[in-house]
Amino acid sequence: MTALSTVLDGERVPPDLPERSAAAAAETVADDATLAVSGFGSVGYPKATPEALAAAADDRSLSLTVVSGGSTGPPIDTTLVETGAVARRFPYQATPQARRAANERTMGFADRGIAGLSDEVRFGRLVDPDVAVVEAVGVGNGWLAPSTSIGQTPAYVRAADELIVEVNAAQPRALARFHDVIVRDPSPNREPLAVTAPGERVGEPVVRFDPAKLRAVVRTDRRDDPYEFRDPTATDRTIADHLLEFLETEIRRDPVVGAAPTLQFGVGSLGNALMGALSGSPLADAGLRYYGEVIQDGLLDLLDEGGLSAASATSLALSEAGQDRLFAEPERYADRVVLRPSDVSNAPALIDRLGVVAVNSAVGVDIYGHVNSTHVRGSRLLNGVGGSVDFNRNAHCTVVTLPSTAGDGDLSTVVPMATHVDHTEHDTDVIVTEHGVADLRGTTPTERAERVIAVADPAFRADLRRYLDRARKATGHVPHDLERAFDWQR
Amino acid sequence: MTALSTVLDGERVPPDLPERSAAAAAETVADDATLAVSGFGSVGYPKATPEALAAAADDRSLSLTVVSGGSTGPPIDTTLVETGAVARRFPYQATPQARRAANERTMGFADRGIAGLSDEVRFGRLVDPDVAVVEAVGVGNGWLAPSTSIGQTPAYVRAADELIVEVNAAQPRALARFHDVIVRDPSPNREPLAVTAPGERVGEPVVRFDPAKLRAVVRTDRRDDPYEFRDPTATDRTIADHLLEFLETEIRRDPVVGAAPTLQFGVGSLGNALMGALSGSPLADAGLRYYGEVIQDGLLDLLDEGGLSAASATSLALSEAGQDRLFAEPERYADRVVLRPSDVSNAPALIDRLGVVAVNSAVGVDIYGHVNSTHVRGSRLLNGVGGSVDFNRNAHCTVVTLPSTAGDGDLSTVVPMATHVDHTEHDTDVIVTEHGVADLRGTTPTERAERVIAVADPAFRADLRRYLDRARKATGHVPHDLERAFDWQR
Repeated sequence: MTALSTVLDGERVPPDLPERSAAAAAETVADDATLAVSGFGSVGYPKATPEALAAAADDRSLSLTVVSGGSTGPPIDTTLVETGAVARRFPYQATPQARRAANERTMGFADRGIAGLSDEVRFGRLVDPDVAVVEAVGVGNGWLAPSTSIGQTPAYVRAADELIVEVNAAQPRALARFHDVIVRDPSPNREPLAVTAPGERVGEPVVRFDPAKLRAVVRTDRRDDPYEFRDPTATDRTIADHLLEFLETEIRRDPVVGAAPTLQFGVGSLGNALMGALSGSPLADAGLRYYGEVIQDGLLDLLDEGGLSAASATSLALSEAGQDRLFAEPERYADRVVLRPSDVSNAPALIDRLGVVAVNSAVGVDIYGHVNSTHVRGSRLLNGVGGSVDFNRNAHCTVVTLPSTAGDGDLSTVVPMATHVDHTEHDTDVIVTEHGVADLRGTTPTERAERVIAVADPAFRADLRRYLDRARKATGHVPHDLERAFDWQR
Repeated sequence: MTALSTVLDGERVPPDLPERSAAAAAETVADDATLAVSGFGSVGYPKATPEALAAAADDRSLSLTVVSGGSTGPPIDTTLVETGAVARRFPYQATPQARRAANERTMGFADRGIAGLSDEVRFGRLVDPDVAVVEAVGVGNGWLAPSTSIGQTPAYVRAADELIVEVNAAQPRALARFHDVIVRDPSPNREPLAVTAPGERVGEPVVRFDPAKLRAVVRTDRRDDPYEFRDPTATDRTIADHLLEFLETEIRRDPVVGAAPTLQFGVGSLGNALMGALSGSPLADAGLRYYGEVIQDGLLDLLDEGGLSAASATSLALSEAGQDRLFAEPERYADRVVLRPSDVSNAPALIDRLGVVAVNSAVGVDIYGHVNSTHVRGSRLLNGVGGSVDFNRNAHCTVVTLPSTAGDGDLSTVVPMATHVDHTEHDTDVIVTEHGVADLRGTTPTERAERVIAVADPAFRADLRRYLDRARKATGHVPHDLERAFDWQR
């Protein structure tokens, strides 16, 4: 039997595996253990074991380190975090509770990019995990089939000494049809990644592991907490209009983009709105491909219409409606949608080779093109940098999209100087707000400033210009006035 | 005849090519032309044509755009720039005159990374060059053999409409023995890079061009202005001691580094001193390999001793003594030294696959690990970011080396908040000063701050700690006090 038919037609949990209750599995976890968990794009995370750990938190002195693929869900980043059991957390979170704990520094947090994370954990440079806790749609003797995300799971099950697999009956086994798993040899002897197109499969649908590590298989039966996208706002739609116009121009003008426009969109409501705007647009006839880290609802319409020849990611970050739609007919999408380990979905080599146009949102930008994706006023963490750092750095064209204001329109997201820099001026090609497209390619810093100010909210443009004019009275390649650079954010 | 024997044994300039004087070549350049020139690591740049343009500057209204591979030499960045003929300049410079012009904004300048630059110029995203002006050790009908650097030359001769080749009789033709040139297919259909080890050759020793583009061949006969390294200081030597100790530990501890320690060092006197310190050290027996962008004098001793099995770069950035040594016996080095186009020497895919430990210097670092490589007080450009952005982002381990003070010891290079960020906290693994090694891997921001402060100059540690302690009174994942963040730099 092939690996795929074993997953699809075999038993989810063969009888010879050590099936345990979640409570029993949680008992095998040491109080100060380092856990490497599945989950990316807030789906495909373990559910019962973290909740069992949380339930035991009152009776145990838990001081856990938790490293996830990307964002997980409430069992870890709400319930477990709220007990105070998570002493350290890497590399990304997306819940109010985890965010608060990181900002109050009751939980140690550190923010890392995605592409290198598998290596960082495999080779002990970030953490050295004791236990991997991962969700699957099926498990066998030495293999597991991931559920709605793959993330860093292949690396984590190798790095950890022990393994707990949650087999979730609410996740269709047909999810294995989407998976294309490879595990790279360690540097310095790794082979080139063999993927030559977003839809190409070069691996297998399961993650292999050393059977001697398997401590427990825990049965669960509930879906991921669905992603909740807000409805697109008028601002989202205007940003989408500008972006689409820009992309149409690039397809005509740039032979790389024209040959096979390959897009990536960041996670979140704006990213989802931008994906959705492609559907029914002239771009739906342009032979689009998608090479990113998350597939969100916005892409499903485009897939249904035939406007997307292939989509590659590491996570199906769908709303409840999106899950219903995909789960009802997985076969309908599985020939064009590929889920990969996140060191492949976010690989610099592939982002380069495929000529990706990366579209990611931001908290703010400064007039010279530095981008803040993570921290408010230099200090307060939102979610984390995630894969934007991989795509923005290595894309053929790097586009940053954001509304020009925050709050109730009383704060400009375009500022004189970014108080936290996640992506530098060296990487930012284009900024799009609801006021237009600032094409920064081939410009000097002061030219960039002019173009960025032109897409700021009109109410703030005069102040931004005043800052620029004052700063440029002094010499300096990137004119700044350090006395006043943060006046707006103080 | 093979391409190599043609270069070594043929005529440097066959009689059927359009040999011209430099003045005549310069006349073919339009007043507002965009020039794409050779030169990387301040070697291998065209000499006579830029000087002829400078000589004609009084009589012409020149307003040139000059994009180089990396840093060039005095003919462009001193002589030509001083005439005011260079209106725009990309992506890097390293002379006081070009720096002044960039900071006074009499010359438009923009600072870009190296790995993507070939593509940016080939596909018109940075500039659309009219003329390529490149130095060679020999030229034929449709090929040229670069001299002391390759840089972006393969891309630039493709991107430009016309071509001027300077054939320099003072550069040995045996330099072609070092070259390994490939030109990648454009995205989205490019193949994986076939290089699997620093010393491996996968291309040919010449750059091919469309013979119809050749406007002029200009003979020259003088060496590059040699790189001038200052002698290593006591601080350099102490930094080197700490770095070597760190590397020895990593070789023992990290299987990737242990399997084949593959180093990269940044350009400049500190980088050269660190390279030189390897010679005669225990690391010289560790099977070192080098995969970087420049080969400087410090590596020659190590090559002579057999302490380096292979070295790959895009430039031989040598002092006069280093040039003498290499030019006297090129065969001695050519089997272990490979020069590549800079989109290969700096390729993210290869930096990743080869497991590079990147060692680059900086102007300053902040307590959270953000790195400033380019601008003083947020505004004043030094040289540019160059390839450090490629290596720091994609290396297996990213090490930043710098003395803990600047000026006469009265300025701390460790500051509360970087006034210009070229490399973010997400990428900085280790900081080394003369006061020790701050290993930031696996740490939270406040833990990072403690470790960074511990390697600051002792005279500034109390102030840095005071900043940190005050900032951490408020909540925030990365505690900052925006009122005081720049107090030190104002």
